[in-house]
Amino acid sequence: MQAMNSDNALHFDVALVLDLLGVFFFAVSGSLLAARKGFDMVGSLLLGCLVGLGGGVIRDLIISTAVPAAFSQPLYLAPPLLAAVLVHLLFSHVERGGRLLIIFDAGGLALFCITGTLKALVAGLNPVAAILLGVTTAVGGGLLRDITANEVPQLFDSKDLYGIPAFLGAGLTTVLFSTGLLNLFSGSAVAVAVFTFRILAWHFGWHAPLAARRNRAGAVPG
Amino acid sequence: MQAMNSDNALHFDVALVLDLLGVFFFAVSGSLLAARKGFDMVGSLLLGCLVGLGGGVIRDLIISTAVPAAFSQPLYLAPPLLAAVLVHLLFSHVERGGRLLIIFDAGGLALFCITGTLKALVAGLNPVAAILLGVTTAVGGGLLRDITANEVPQLFDSKDLYGIPAFLGAGLTTVLFSTGLLNLFSGSAVAVAVFTFRILAWHFGWHAPLAARRNRAGAVPG
Amino acid sequence: MQAMNSDNALHFDVALVLDLLGVFFFAVSGSLLAARKGFDMVGSLLLGCLVGLGGGVIRDLIISTAVPAAFSQPLYLAPPLLAAVLVHLLFSHVERGGRLLIIFDAGGLALFCITGTLKALVAGLNPVAAILLGVTTAVGGGLLRDITANEVPQLFDSKDLYGIPAFLGAGLTTVLFSTGLLNLFSGSAVAVAVFTFRILAWHFGWHAPLAARRNRAGAVPG
Repeated sequence: MQAMNSDNALHFDVALVLDLLGVFFFAVSGSLLAARKGFDMVGSLLLGCLVGLGGGVIRDLIISTAVPAAFSQPLYLAPPLLAAVLVHLLFSHVERGGRLLIIFDAGGLALFCITGTLKALVAGLNPVAAILLGVTTAVGGGLLRDITANEVPQLFDSKDLYGIPAFLGAGLTTVLFSTGLLNLFSGSAVAVAVFTFRILAWHFGWHAPLAARRNRAGAVPG
Repeated sequence: MQAMNSDNALHFDVALVLDLLGVFFFAVSGSLLAARKGFDMVGSLLLGCLVGLGGGVIRDLIISTAVPAAFSQPLYLAPPLLAAVLVHLLFSHVERGGRLLIIFDAGGLALFCITGTLKALVAGLNPVAAILLGVTTAVGGGLLRDITANEVPQLFDSKDLYGIPAFLGAGLTTVLFSTGLLNLFSGSAVAVAVFTFRILAWHFGWHAPLAARRNRAGAVPG
Repeated sequence: MQAMNSDNALHFDVALVLDLLGVFFFAVSGSLLAARKGFDMVGSLLLGCLVGLGGGVIRDLIISTAVPAAFSQPLYLAPPLLAAVLVHLLFSHVERGGRLLIIFDAGGLALFCITGTLKALVAGLNPVAAILLGVTTAVGGGLLRDITANEVPQLFDSKDLYGIPAFLGAGLTTVLFSTGLLNLFSGSAVAVAVFTFRILAWHFGWHAPLAARRNRAGAVPG
């Protein structure tokens, strides 16, 4: 890996905070799902770890030969612990709606598409690979969560846009990084934009064209 | 990694084309499944990426410390894009049968058991490991596809042979490589043989003995 | 990796035997599940490989840049082969209960939380990371098994303790290793303790508090 100048070091510090915040958001979404499924606190903590840390571990395995941050830095275990405790204390069985889960998931998505892309760019990957890796990081944890819970992943579900906001965030991050305009403020603006886009898409049911066009001769034969 | 002679370089060029073709076949199978499940085009593209690139990413993570080819070479994104567009344009909701999915999946299986094994052998793995890795590459993408779609994976399904053709292809590739007989023609012959074997097994319902023998005292108690 | 003294070499030899035994136990649990689901022998062997080797491959990918032991040492394929054959010969469709599966799974859990932690400590990871990796190794294979079989993973299931015994075993291993007290006898004692703990938790239905507290105002409104 190339020597990092102070600029990149700055990127990294900010990225660590954003990364930990993203871990927390995804971990909450995992613990909320655990609560809804009636799992116990250990299951809640472990599902939170899987969702919060899974995307980042995949990212770190792909870009580098070092031990993934989630394993080498014990600090990464704090957000899932906090998430499991908060969900246990604050969440009651009455609030079963998936609304809160969608919101925290959107927060994680918004942060991880930035930190994943940034980490790939700093590691020297080309822009296309960096965007792809940013999207992988952003959607990886949620994919693991949904697969584990035996649900069709939100990622592939056609009800509203999920992958597109992550692509947008990863693309904007790449442009800002390449032009030297990426900083705490522009990065936060991207995160807010991705989060807002995702929530609006969910609220209004925006969706992409279907994978297969409907049959045009759709008339039911008499 | 050891220096590669021109022979291995030739292997690699051919392997790249076969690998991309395998990615395309598996990506089509992913997009077909997305169409059947009613996912949107983004889901179709992402499921195509997961199925087409998943097996190769696992392979590259296992054999090498470099960034997996799917991430370092943007060219690998072309087949899933093409697959999602073709399925969107050509596939109608009427053709819901899994026939097409089985055929494209068999094509990917036939190519990946060769390219996965070859990449492992070139990386210096022993023959047994190379065969195991070839099979892992060949069945990995389809396994991810079926798990994601909440279906019992074809790989473990007892209705017809799936793993055996991949083992055969990986074994033949290892023998041809070790004896210096592997070239475009012999490799293509192996691919055709594996594809044909898999399709015949599916068509005629060939299957292996069950994991557990049926109870011999099978008479229903009176 | 740092030079290993003879002590660590000793650890490694014992660890190899324990690791292979753990692979065997998990592979049996995979083949038993394959039998229950009506898979064929190829599916049984491959599911046994996935369950028996999956946790260790994840572990090796995380801690090191070398090819995972399951791929570089053909010896690792012997336990899944043996497991598939034994299950085929000894298991009949009559014995469908999950009792045997739970017991073999507990055996694998007990051994892998030790070998996974030990391998991480020898590779120079900090104690917290080593414990986390030990737990990941121990629960990884079973998680893959349950996800593949479309069942809610035992790991997250609230019916009895599953993750806690693995945490306990990984923690004890770390303490014994750090104090220089880890040897074949103390390691075996930890394995027996973890196995016993898990089986007792299953038999008596010990469980942790739920992820979310039940609503206190639980009275049904009139």
